[in-house]
Amino acid sequence: MAITKLNTYQPLTEQSAISMAVNVGIFEDGSLLTCEEIGDGNLNLVFHVVERDSGKGIIIKQALPYAKVVGESWPLTIERARIEAGALNLQRSFVGDLVPEVYHSDPSLAVTVMEDLSSLTIARAGLINGNKYPRLSDDIGTFLANTLYFTSDYALHPFRKKEYVKEFSNPELCKITEDLVFTDPFFNSETNEFEEELSGDVQQLWDDFTVKLEVAKLKKSFLTEGEALLHGDLHTGSIFVDDQHTKVIDPEFAFYGPIGFDIGQFIANLIFQVIASPGEKEPILHHIENTWNVFSATFSKHWKESGDAYTKVNGYLEYVLEKSFQDSIGFAGCECIRRTIGLAHVDDLESIEDKEQRLKAKRACLNLGKKLIVNRKHILSIEELLTLVRSYSE
Amino acid sequence: MAITKLNTYQPLTEQSAISMAVNVGIFEDGSLLTCEEIGDGNLNLVFHVVERDSGKGIIIKQALPYAKVVGESWPLTIERARIEAGALNLQRSFVGDLVPEVYHSDPSLAVTVMEDLSSLTIARAGLINGNKYPRLSDDIGTFLANTLYFTSDYALHPFRKKEYVKEFSNPELCKITEDLVFTDPFFNSETNEFEEELSGDVQQLWDDFTVKLEVAKLKKSFLTEGEALLHGDLHTGSIFVDDQHTKVIDPEFAFYGPIGFDIGQFIANLIFQVIASPGEKEPILHHIENTWNVFSATFSKHWKESGDAYTKVNGYLEYVLEKSFQDSIGFAGCECIRRTIGLAHVDDLESIEDKEQRLKAKRACLNLGKKLIVNRKHILSIEELLTLVRSYSE
Repeated sequence: MAITKLNTYQPLTEQSAISMAVNVGIFEDGSLLTCEEIGDGNLNLVFHVVERDSGKGIIIKQALPYAKVVGESWPLTIERARIEAGALNLQRSFVGDLVPEVYHSDPSLAVTVMEDLSSLTIARAGLINGNKYPRLSDDIGTFLANTLYFTSDYALHPFRKKEYVKEFSNPELCKITEDLVFTDPFFNSETNEFEEELSGDVQQLWDDFTVKLEVAKLKKSFLTEGEALLHGDLHTGSIFVDDQHTKVIDPEFAFYGPIGFDIGQFIANLIFQVIASPGEKEPILHHIENTWNVFSATFSKHWKESGDAYTKVNGYLEYVLEKSFQDSIGFAGCECIRRTIGLAHVDDLESIEDKEQRLKAKRACLNLGKKLIVNRKHILSIEELLTLVRSYSE
Repeated sequence: MAITKLNTYQPLTEQSAISMAVNVGIFEDGSLLTCEEIGDGNLNLVFHVVERDSGKGIIIKQALPYAKVVGESWPLTIERARIEAGALNLQRSFVGDLVPEVYHSDPSLAVTVMEDLSSLTIARAGLINGNKYPRLSDDIGTFLANTLYFTSDYALHPFRKKEYVKEFSNPELCKITEDLVFTDPFFNSETNEFEEELSGDVQQLWDDFTVKLEVAKLKKSFLTEGEALLHGDLHTGSIFVDDQHTKVIDPEFAFYGPIGFDIGQFIANLIFQVIASPGEKEPILHHIENTWNVFSATFSKHWKESGDAYTKVNGYLEYVLEKSFQDSIGFAGCECIRRTIGLAHVDDLESIEDKEQRLKAKRACLNLGKKLIVNRKHILSIEELLTLVRSYSE
């Protein structure tokens, strides 16, 4: 096997991925290695390299210079590989094993070499198959509290925080969210995709200026409020799980934004399960409740360690948590809508085979989404949110 | 005269400032030039270079590697010279002659060579002397509307805006504001300075947790909300005026922050005049009212040209203006307090010779400041603000 060293960017092949695994010192020269490209191919190549004798594996992820989701016509710089590796390393310093270990990264090749998670399952797929993953909400609640608190102004010296804001400036991937989450689904945009039967519901949404005004405010928050370093794409497809482990992957959308965005996206993706799943809904509802409760309890615990004088002022923590809760609900509402009628759909809904059932579930997501967006300041507790979600899943 | 060219940073002298004026091509070699250092010396050297025969003048401003206000012990990088020159050039593209023209800038020498404004007066000094400057609020209202709108997400492509956010990341000068405006005056900090007679009032402020909670929220906004490129230090000492001209100078504190901050600081510095001035108060009250009215009318006019789909949604402009108004009032309240008991005082108050009168004016500023901070969401129009300000100036 010829071992060549790449110096300038080119997409890896299974062969050159093997060479890289040896070159960066993870496997010895002469090891018997197999390699398979396992990515879903939206934005990246993902190689699984395994040493045959020991069974030891690694993942090599490489950003492509375009977004495959709409063909090569959507160019995207490979800068996001630097963001992803940087975010994984920073998150790992706050949450340990809740994110994969990065063994090596090379921004110029857009490559991140990391821990093999192939023994785990993508949470979305596992939940659709009826698994409950008892650790999921404890772990994601902790992930949210630690990553969001420790990158905020409450924890960081302002110089360090402003360095991170620059390091994680992420215009290209933010633009995808700005368009696909906040704008396109609420207007008659070419990127939208929905069954013809939903046309009436969608037209009603586009004509609803109460909803649009509230989405405008939420988009403004996404554009301007640099509260903490977000994962930026925290849906159940970005989480690997089994009954004992939770690993949050793919933070290539990371940037400084409003705390509620990560929380809201995760909650919305659990809501899809509550609405779509034919099985027992209470375990998923429990995950929603527990995610918020673990987040707020853990965030509050960290808050007490802050050196910032204002964190000692009565009512300030409660203000920050209440704002984050309201924001979470609003962002969850946007996610409910965009995953139903926007460009990127979710298997939770799409895999419902019965058409009437599927349309009913999608209408529930649309209507609940609107309700969450418009009523976010009047839903005063996680219990009230659960009651509302239940009422849309019957 | 020996003409030497500087390559590395060193503080200019009157002699080397003259050399620079020739080297950058503003005056011909052999011109008869005089030079005087005219800075107030807080953070910078300021040289006034004049050609004797033509009378033509320029200003050479150089950042010092420390803040003189507390001696050389407060180090400060010269990075702010790059920020200032960049902000002046960008602002000039939106407001034309309302800011001085930059002829030359050199970030490595921390030097900005610009238009001579020595025929004008610093607005604070002129107002204290009883001048009314009829153009002041028209011009500052326009300056605010244009600089804040055209650097916002409503006007800029998101990629461009995020480039500016990085370019104008300004941790050191923001930290000065974070400490001296938002934190120190509200706690028993060494930097505070006030007459002993105010001790009781100050202790009352420090014990007032309602005020402190609202200041915490305003500081959070300053730290996290990147709505537009602010001037960052828009008090009446940063404005040169005569009856026909207004020139906003010194944007070295420029960074992406909440729109209301610039508006609030300017209004607060007019409020000092209303409270302190023995003369007619109505012309200054008119400037406060007109600043807001010109700002909001001009901002609204620009808004109608925006390409952002959400700017067409009914109620969104009103939401943005209302938020900016409430923020302005809150930030004005912080400025009222910090200029009374914090590190940096204002001549409007300090120049009141009669001690009882001075203490009365300072107490009015303190109490009005608290009121503005706590009640900012309940003051619903600029007229209501004027009524409130009047009631504290009697």
